[in-house]
Amino acid sequence: MTDPNWLDEREQRAWRGFLAVNAAVRGRIARQLQQETGLSSADYAVLVSLSEAPGGRLRVFQLRVAADWEKTRLTHQITRMTARGLVAREPCADDPRGAFVVLTDAGWEAITSAAPRHVEHVRHWFFDALGPGHVDALIELNDTVTRHLLSTDGPCAPCDVPSSCDDVLP
Amino acid sequence: MTDPNWLDEREQRAWRGFLAVNAAVRGRIARQLQQETGLSSADYAVLVSLSEAPGGRLRVFQLRVAADWEKTRLTHQITRMTARGLVAREPCADDPRGAFVVLTDAGWEAITSAAPRHVEHVRHWFFDALGPGHVDALIELNDTVTRHLLSTDGPCAPCDVPSSCDDVLP
Repeated sequence: MTDPNWLDEREQRAWRGFLAVNAAVRGRIARQLQQETGLSSADYAVLVSLSEAPGGRLRVFQLRVAADWEKTRLTHQITRMTARGLVAREPCADDPRGAFVVLTDAGWEAITSAAPRHVEHVRHWFFDALGPGHVDALIELNDTVTRHLLSTDGPCAPCDVPSSCDDVLP
Repeated sequence: MTDPNWLDEREQRAWRGFLAVNAAVRGRIARQLQQETGLSSADYAVLVSLSEAPGGRLRVFQLRVAADWEKTRLTHQITRMTARGLVAREPCADDPRGAFVVLTDAGWEAITSAAPRHVEHVRHWFFDALGPGHVDALIELNDTVTRHLLSTDGPCAPCDVPSSCDDVLP
């Protein structure tokens, strides 16, 4: 076996920063949102996902919460949100074993009142740091990695890269 | 109340990509590592964190798993890893209520055999997509946001930004 091709100092710095900065920004926004609205970042992601779908309705596998969530964890998340009245389950006519998740009135109200605060936090913790050049560089970086993931994934890859998923929405 | 300053299309694209690409890359690496080594990404982060500390030993609050983890979740993680023999708890002489987490021989072996695979996946899913300009741009972006978080945080902020934490290591 050949020696591992370890990351050099610059790559190490880029990689660890890629993980740490993302987690630090998400963590700060999540804490503030939770304090102010009682919604966790997972609650918020589910509500946004549903609010943007036609009829506020999606199949569970279409919800984009986080790419690294196991199916069980997503099911528990939906069960808790159902118990709190933010979403409801509806049977799926085409698939007797499947179900839709639908935004309730309380869910619409929760996302409508949380969204203005959320965007404020995103600006405060993230965009306030960036100049226009940073935003351009970030978009270019995102697009480059997304193209790479799509071309590297096999045919049964997880559907969690933004541009690959638009066609699964009803 | 003034109208929310919603993200424009370009900002929306940058922000959603920032979240989605990071999660997609982490998800792919985590799935492969889990299949090959049985270690979750949280296991791996704890093992790396300990392996880089003097004596393979850290206080629980010094472990860098993920900035958005609640304390309870970290405690459960350590309990599971202790049961699997990857780490052990040791009493802390200076603080009767505190404890150290220490890497065991099995933990050293796990991280030593997983690290070469991990770096291979990081190259495959991430660095293989990037040119030197991308790496420079990413480091600059990380540093800019890190400086912003440090200057925006209050004095009791969570200790999860890389350059702010070096002084807590023993």
